[in-house]
Amino acid sequence: MKEMLLVSLKEQFGSFISGEFLSQRLGVTRTAVWKQVQLLREQGYGIEALPRLGYRLLALPDLLLPAEIQAGLKTEILGRKVYHYHEIDSTNRLARELGGSGAPEGAIVIAESQHSGRGRLERKWFSPPGGIWFSLLLRPRLLPHQAQLLTLAAASAAVQATVLTCGLSPGIKWPNDLLLAGRKMAGILTEVSAEMDMLHYLVLGVGVNANIPAEALPEELKDTATSLLAQNGRAADRAAWVRSFLQCYEKQYLAAQNHEFAALLAEWRRCSLTLGRKVTVCLPGREVDGTAVDIDDYGALQVRTPAGLETFQAGELRLREKEDS
Amino acid sequence: MKEMLLVSLKEQFGSFISGEFLSQRLGVTRTAVWKQVQLLREQGYGIEALPRLGYRLLALPDLLLPAEIQAGLKTEILGRKVYHYHEIDSTNRLARELGGSGAPEGAIVIAESQHSGRGRLERKWFSPPGGIWFSLLLRPRLLPHQAQLLTLAAASAAVQATVLTCGLSPGIKWPNDLLLAGRKMAGILTEVSAEMDMLHYLVLGVGVNANIPAEALPEELKDTATSLLAQNGRAADRAAWVRSFLQCYEKQYLAAQNHEFAALLAEWRRCSLTLGRKVTVCLPGREVDGTAVDIDDYGALQVRTPAGLETFQAGELRLREKEDS
Repeated sequence: MKEMLLVSLKEQFGSFISGEFLSQRLGVTRTAVWKQVQLLREQGYGIEALPRLGYRLLALPDLLLPAEIQAGLKTEILGRKVYHYHEIDSTNRLARELGGSGAPEGAIVIAESQHSGRGRLERKWFSPPGGIWFSLLLRPRLLPHQAQLLTLAAASAAVQATVLTCGLSPGIKWPNDLLLAGRKMAGILTEVSAEMDMLHYLVLGVGVNANIPAEALPEELKDTATSLLAQNGRAADRAAWVRSFLQCYEKQYLAAQNHEFAALLAEWRRCSLTLGRKVTVCLPGREVDGTAVDIDDYGALQVRTPAGLETFQAGELRLREKEDS
Repeated sequence: MKEMLLVSLKEQFGSFISGEFLSQRLGVTRTAVWKQVQLLREQGYGIEALPRLGYRLLALPDLLLPAEIQAGLKTEILGRKVYHYHEIDSTNRLARELGGSGAPEGAIVIAESQHSGRGRLERKWFSPPGGIWFSLLLRPRLLPHQAQLLTLAAASAAVQATVLTCGLSPGIKWPNDLLLAGRKMAGILTEVSAEMDMLHYLVLGVGVNANIPAEALPEELKDTATSLLAQNGRAADRAAWVRSFLQCYEKQYLAAQNHEFAALLAEWRRCSLTLGRKVTVCLPGREVDGTAVDIDDYGALQVRTPAGLETFQAGELRLREKEDS
């Protein structure tokens, strides 16, 4: 009912709608309409109320509220349940908990900021207000060693969402960092709970430096990170980005569930900044120089080294020449 | 102090020790000794107390209490912390919780019975009193795709423990079922929590049909399962089995942490009932017939089929000829 009220107000954004009209349309009393308006105001919607004229919507909150993400969302599974937080320790942490306690596939946990956001390999992830920080819970009927493919697909869905909603074309550094002008704009942290031959659940944590001004980046990230705002000179529509990501990703996810991996791999290759480049693969206690040649059927990186072709399931990659995007 | 009291009583099993002697040896009052004796009695130790004569131990509880497992345990890490339950839903479930909340590596959760014990692929696991049901928490510094090796090592450590404490020689059906006379005597369920390039923790659930009479096996298992008691005609020393397993496994585990996998693989091959046998690999929606040739460096099974050599990371195996062990 709150959702329907919001739809009505948005249709007439800036114009008054009478309480009488709303109460008839929604099939509730005028007092009930008034109560829902109060709830929307508490969430940050700017709604003016005047005697005789009724209500008008004047301002949307710049928040990734469930209603904002779900308005017009064309997915079957992903994002049908949204848990929104103004601040949280880590969206992945809560999504893992939901995974362990039977929450439905496709649920997302989204927060305006994280105070203990994490990146890969236990690194901190700077997650202030203005970014997009969310975790998606999946229950894929795949084997554990196929999970990496779902991570790769998430990276290319994030590229597509950025193209479609911001007009910017990031490239992917294997396995799943998004770069713009050679700097990190988004990253993905995948966590799984699994048996040797069955995934229990998978949590895909997506972090996008969206509307973070360049000068707000911490000193240690200034040379290596960037944001959609910094690259585009204007704020991104964060809810539209999330919707677009969920829609692009759902297509790839459903194909993967049917063991159709070819399109997924092709799409990743198309978005890759990695293949054909000179790279250094950094492993615990070892660094390997070579040329990134391809990814294999499981998403592992194949690197031509002086010693021959080596395949890496994991590792931190350094691109050794400036890319020209 | 309770442990020291128990050691003293066990040294003189069946003979009286005076309260005065115990109080001097332990450096506590005679009232304190009395209180500890009461606690031991509550755990099931049969201790007689007579005025002037003192205390004597007459019966040990047939329970896998921490003190019973740790008495004489020669390990550095494994089993240094034991959580014992008379009944639990599932030891793996609690061990996962401990894994997520920072419990120390090597901790074990052990229960006399499980009412929701699970095997691989979400199957129920019959876990009545008399069996050995425990889960070991590990935090290996290995990549997720190396986790299978730790499962294989657990299977061969379980073989060794059975040889050493029961004089029986089970064989391993890939990846980790222990068979005696062609029937399942023990199984291992490995669960991991991981990122794509880092294991958070690994839980190794070990289930052994130890002192379960053949006639107590449920109807649907009578043709496929057996127990140490049924095979040997006498009860196994369950605490000795667990100690032996932990000691054998710790050696292999520490080697694996140093990336020394060759001995581990060789040991598994030595205990295998699988290699050289005609097998059917059952996958979701597909069955593959062939001859099991070897395991690869990651513990995957290599099967020669009419179509060529196929490698299986996962799957349920059927051995197609009766083994002769």
